[in-house]
Parts: sequence; C-alpha cells; structure tokens
Amino acid sequence: MACGSPTLPQVDNRPIGVFDSGIGGLTVLRALLRAFPKESFVYLGDTARLPYGPKSPQTIRKYSEQNLEFLCRQNVKSLVVACGSASTQILESEFRGIPVYTVIGPGAAQALKKSQTQRIGILGTRATISSEAYLLALKSRNPLAHVASVACPLFVPLVEEGWELDPLTNLIVYRYLAPLTQENLDTLILGCTHYPLLAQAIGRVMGPQVTLIDTGESVAEQMAPHLVPASPADMDPSGPQVRFCVTDACSQFQFLAERILGPNLLQSLDLVVL
Amino acid sequence: MACGSPTLPQVDNRPIGVFDSGIGGLTVLRALLRAFPKESFVYLGDTARLPYGPKSPQTIRKYSEQNLEFLCRQNVKSLVVACGSASTQILESEFRGIPVYTVIGPGAAQALKKSQTQRIGILGTRATISSEAYLLALKSRNPLAHVASVACPLFVPLVEEGWELDPLTNLIVYRYLAPLTQENLDTLILGCTHYPLLAQAIGRVMGPQVTLIDTGESVAEQMAPHLVPASPADMDPSGPQVRFCVTDACSQFQFLAERILGPNLLQSLDLVVL
Repeated sequence: MACGSPTLPQVDNRPIGVFDSGIGGLTVLRALLRAFPKESFVYLGDTARLPYGPKSPQTIRKYSEQNLEFLCRQNVKSLVVACGSASTQILESEFRGIPVYTVIGPGAAQALKKSQTQRIGILGTRATISSEAYLLALKSRNPLAHVASVACPLFVPLVEEGWELDPLTNLIVYRYLAPLTQENLDTLILGCTHYPLLAQAIGRVMGPQVTLIDTGESVAEQMAPHLVPASPADMDPSGPQVRFCVTDACSQFQFLAERILGPNLLQSLDLVVL
Repeated sequence: MACGSPTLPQVDNRPIGVFDSGIGGLTVLRALLRAFPKESFVYLGDTARLPYGPKSPQTIRKYSEQNLEFLCRQNVKSLVVACGSASTQILESEFRGIPVYTVIGPGAAQALKKSQTQRIGILGTRATISSEAYLLALKSRNPLAHVASVACPLFVPLVEEGWELDPLTNLIVYRYLAPLTQENLDTLILGCTHYPLLAQAIGRVMGPQVTLIDTGESVAEQMAPHLVPASPADMDPSGPQVRFCVTDACSQFQFLAERILGPNLLQSLDLVVL
C-alpha cells in the first residue's frame, strides 16, 4: 500500500499493563476484560505499600512511578493507572513512550456526558479529594458544572473486610453521603476503584435518579479507539490471559479477586520486587 | 568504690527510641511518658508504609528492621516496638547491642498477672492474630490458660478517622466482640496499639468484669527495673522532650497526636528517609 503517512501496526500482541495500590484496581481490570476480551494483561497490585489513600502526593507519585517502571519492563503496549489516588499524581499521557490512561480524565468526561443537569458528585479517598483532581477535570471541561465532593476513608477497609453487603456498611455509607443527598445531583463519580463494589449501598442512599460512574468503564471507553488490538489468531483458546503480580503476599488479594473477577481467572500470583 | 563486678552507669541521658507503623504507637509513648517523665524520646511513625496489619510477616520484618536501624542511628538507649504487628516479627531482645522491648511479652505477662481465672482474650490486626504471637506468649507462661482471639481489621481505620466515640463504632465493636462475650473472660489484651483509643467502646461491650490490658503500660512496667535513668539535673525545665519523625507527611498524624498526647507536646514533625 503506497501511502505518505506512517502506517500503524495492524496488530499488537503485547499485553496491557494495569496497576493499583492493591486490590481496587481489579474493578478496572474487570471493565477492561469485558471491553477487550481478546487482550492479555499484566496486573500489578502494590500490596506491600497499600493503601495510597492516606499518603502524601510526593509519596504516591514516587510509588506510582516505580509501578509504571515495572510494567514497562513487562513490555506492555498501554499503561492503566487503576487507582484514584495514584491517578491524581500521574499527569503524563505517555511514560517511556507508552500511552498512559488514568481514571480521572475519562471518569470526568463520562460523568459530564451522562449528566443531564451537570450537577455532579465525587467520592474518593482523602488523597483524591484533597488533590481536587476530579474537580479540576470537570471544571476544565465545563466551568459551569456544579460539583460536590466527599472523602470516604472507611470505604476501602470495609470492602477489604468483605463487608460490601453488610447492614453496617449501609449505615456508614449513609453517614458519608448524607450531605450529597441535599445537592440535587444526577451523576456521582465513584472516584476510588474500590467503590464499584459498594455501588449497591451507594445507589440505595443516592436513589435511582443518580447515575453512578464506574471509572473502569470510562477508561475502557476512552482507550477503545486508540488500542491496536491483539491478533485473534494468536489468542489463547482458554480465554483471556492475565498475569497477576503483587509486591507482598496478601491473603485478601485472592479472596477479593475471586469476588470481583469470578472464580477461575486468578490461577497464580507472582510476588515481585519493584 | 572497689567492686569485682562491672558497674552500671548511674545516668544515661540518651533518648528512648519508639517506633510504630504510624499513629497507634503514640498510645505506647503516652504510657512511657507517664512512667518516665524525666526521659527524652525519639518517636518514628512509618507513615509512608502504614498500616502493617494487612501485610505479610516478611514485609513487616523488613520494614521493622529499617525502623530499628533508623532509631539506632539516633543514639538511643532502648528500643520500643510500639506496634502489635511489628512486635510479632521482632523476637530479639537486643538489636545492635541495644535492648529491645516489644508489646507482646509484656502484654501477655501483665494479662496473666491481672487475670484471676486465666481466661484471656486477644484483639489485634489480621497480621497479629494470624501470627499467634500473643497466644504463644500466654501459653508458654501458662499452658493451662484459656485463650480466645479475634482479628478486628476495621478498628485501625475507625480510630484514624477519629470515630472512636461514634455510635457506629459501637456497632462495629459489638460485631467483632460478640463471640468473645460468650467466652467468660476476665482479661482482654488490646493487642494493637490503636485499640486503647477504643477502650470505652470495648469496655462497654465486654462489661466491667473484664480488665483491659493497654500494652503500652505493660511495656513501661517491664522496662522500669532495667532503665538507666537520665540525669534530673540535665532535664529540660520545659518538660519531656520528644522528637517526632515520620516517613511521610500525614495530616492525620498531627490530628491524632493531639488527641492522644494532648495539645502541646507535638511542636514539630521531622520528615525522614529510612
């Protein structure tokens, strides 16, 4: 084919790299697996240093760069920062020449797209809410949007304890969200990747008129037009291939991975040093 | 004085070194300040990597050794591991020639001493309970003691959220402790250094017949006969001197330090690299 412009490769069998401080990013991986069932993935959970939510911007940035370096060494074709707190500190769209997707921009864009009234709420860890990253991402796209935020530090430990459906969790969710119920919102960004696991409890408090944004789905939507796909011919007939890596052995990882991804995907867990 | 045996120094003005994964160890520092008001202290909170409770034994050991190394470089005379999870991995009684006190042995010894019935409960993080360190420490001192344990992973985040006196916390405390109320205990070890801040809620569930063991007080009691004291003549007239060091800037540290130690002790916070 004679053509003046450089041609993109038609297939790219390299995996997609995904990292999180630990476990929450598995909800992003779940969304990516649904959107791209023919791709393979490397997932890194930085379980030795989780959670990132209570840590400082400088420390979150340092840990996130180490995670990205690790994924680059695994020869990935795209990098996904599947952690709200880490996404506040990674502002680059490329790292070592590889495209980077965080949850902030896609989550904000999808919220504005889905909202009829442009009255949007944000839930996140203390680090994510303090950073105002979602607020800025919304306001830069629509300065007239009304935005209300709440930090919910207990949500991550509740999910990691496996109490997502517990009546006590409903009470805690109600406590954090009560101020937002007065804001007449129609869209709410689940700004921490653990929070989709609390969607039922959050939806019950906010009511059916509020659309919840799972940022994993937002990332998949933003990535779709840019992804050079893996070759279907080279696909493993046994289904999608995911290599799971963690920085610390963590019994909760396997427990929660099964709850999030189903029983058969996590076959082994590599303990890695960054 | 002519004497065949080596003489101990009469005074030792070096500080006592104390470390924790973050904030909970401040309850141990509080107990040490009450017991030894003429001593000075270096407190290290490893806030960049907190919490230790959900991490593996190997990782907790590695982090704890780095913390001890840091304190040794500050020229301390004693080392206190003011963290239940870290204490499960530090079995030495000396480190670089400096005596080490963990919370496990003293806590177990004091529980057995205070218990009339030798029916003793243990509360702790997942790491502490899985390690069975308190169980072994109790059984090695009294093989006939009856011991019941419960891991309470949500207690640390509840304290760090400042919800110690919240009615929701009472419900969560009741949920975790309900099995222990059937065990006819008379003594309960607060096996994580955050838990003394929940003593009121825990006491309400267990009842007044159950003695709660604050392991900070146990450590002070065990340390007292061995401590070569600082010279009263050299004491700062403004009161006890504590140097506070953290590995990450952490807004919750100052908030909780004031709640635990009172308003005037924390004057500055050194950000250190291990």
